[in-house]
Amino acid sequence: MKLYTYFRSSAAYRVRIALNLKGLSWDAMPVHLVRDGGQQNHADYKRLNPAGLVPCLETDDGHILTQSLAIIEYLDETCRAVPLLPADALQRAQVRALAYAVACDIHPINNLRVLRYLGDVLDIDAAPKAAWYRHWVELGLGTIEKMLNAHPDKGRFCHGDTPGMADCCLIPQVYNARRFNVNLDAMPIIRGIAETCESMPAFRAAAPENCPDAE
Amino acid sequence: MKLYTYFRSSAAYRVRIALNLKGLSWDAMPVHLVRDGGQQNHADYKRLNPAGLVPCLETDDGHILTQSLAIIEYLDETCRAVPLLPADALQRAQVRALAYAVACDIHPINNLRVLRYLGDVLDIDAAPKAAWYRHWVELGLGTIEKMLNAHPDKGRFCHGDTPGMADCCLIPQVYNARRFNVNLDAMPIIRGIAETCESMPAFRAAAPENCPDAE
Repeated sequence: MKLYTYFRSSAAYRVRIALNLKGLSWDAMPVHLVRDGGQQNHADYKRLNPAGLVPCLETDDGHILTQSLAIIEYLDETCRAVPLLPADALQRAQVRALAYAVACDIHPINNLRVLRYLGDVLDIDAAPKAAWYRHWVELGLGTIEKMLNAHPDKGRFCHGDTPGMADCCLIPQVYNARRFNVNLDAMPIIRGIAETCESMPAFRAAAPENCPDAE
Repeated sequence: MKLYTYFRSSAAYRVRIALNLKGLSWDAMPVHLVRDGGQQNHADYKRLNPAGLVPCLETDDGHILTQSLAIIEYLDETCRAVPLLPADALQRAQVRALAYAVACDIHPINNLRVLRYLGDVLDIDAAPKAAWYRHWVELGLGTIEKMLNAHPDKGRFCHGDTPGMADCCLIPQVYNARRFNVNLDAMPIIRGIAETCESMPAFRAAAPENCPDAE
């Protein structure tokens, strides 16, 4: 399989973790989101993914899948050896809710294209733009800390003692939070899960600094 | 089941459609997002959903589910009579990608709390705020139009000839697009699907103007 990816893309980072947890072999196809006016905007990439976003997965039989969580669900359905979702429907809903709390409630608001619009179109300076970023991350991760605190099946990971879809989403968001100096002191559960995940080869190999296109 | 909902919330609207398509009986528990400083911010609601967002579903045995797409996946897994996702993994990924193209790439950026931050914190006026809204909707729906155009299994609905998860997400977004005067002339596929869906009782009963808390 080929994953169209950018080392700093947190959506691509999720899928890199999932591929590694599943033990699947894959090739990184770097798409540079800044260089050349953004390679994601080039016609050849937009033929693969009209959204002009990473990641995008090309399967071994040539199918193109977009949207990080759709890709992770697909990997989970087609490679059942290492499940990323629990078997029980209620527990699956709880894990998905944690994943979406990152993927719908934090990340889209702080995506590169949104930050660019704030600066380029709305003329927002660097300081209030950084405050915007931190606001949504602090609010969102604060909510997730409460969700995890109330989650009956929390273990060493978001759900139980094996990593899953929620961890695939949480760890890239924690990485970004640190990069933008968000204070995680009040989030001991998240910090503990991050520490556990970051000690695992599947997560470590997926980290931005370990990608072939890292700068 | 009880659905904590607000008539104009597009995330709640998605779940209302799904519940109706499944033929499930449910009670609307209105949460007014504007009145009383926003009832979603009240302590009693935040005990149910620490994110302070709607919707939130209370199952008949008292479990609380949050995040619209996690709820829809749960309904689909527990009530298989009327499937909202196809059986094939690749097709499921395509339908989910369409759903997330709304739920991750359009809606979060235009959510009430984000629009409020633009006005209250960043001092953005009504006109550039409306332009922000239209920008993300036009960009996002434009992408979905291209995805649907390339989708081999598009039918009367986003996928095939029965409504599913992607339609549950698309129709509320189209509703919002019209409300904010987004021009849909260049999106004939989306307009056709919307017309088909809006002729169905399950979609009509879920529409904001037909909710018990409609104003």
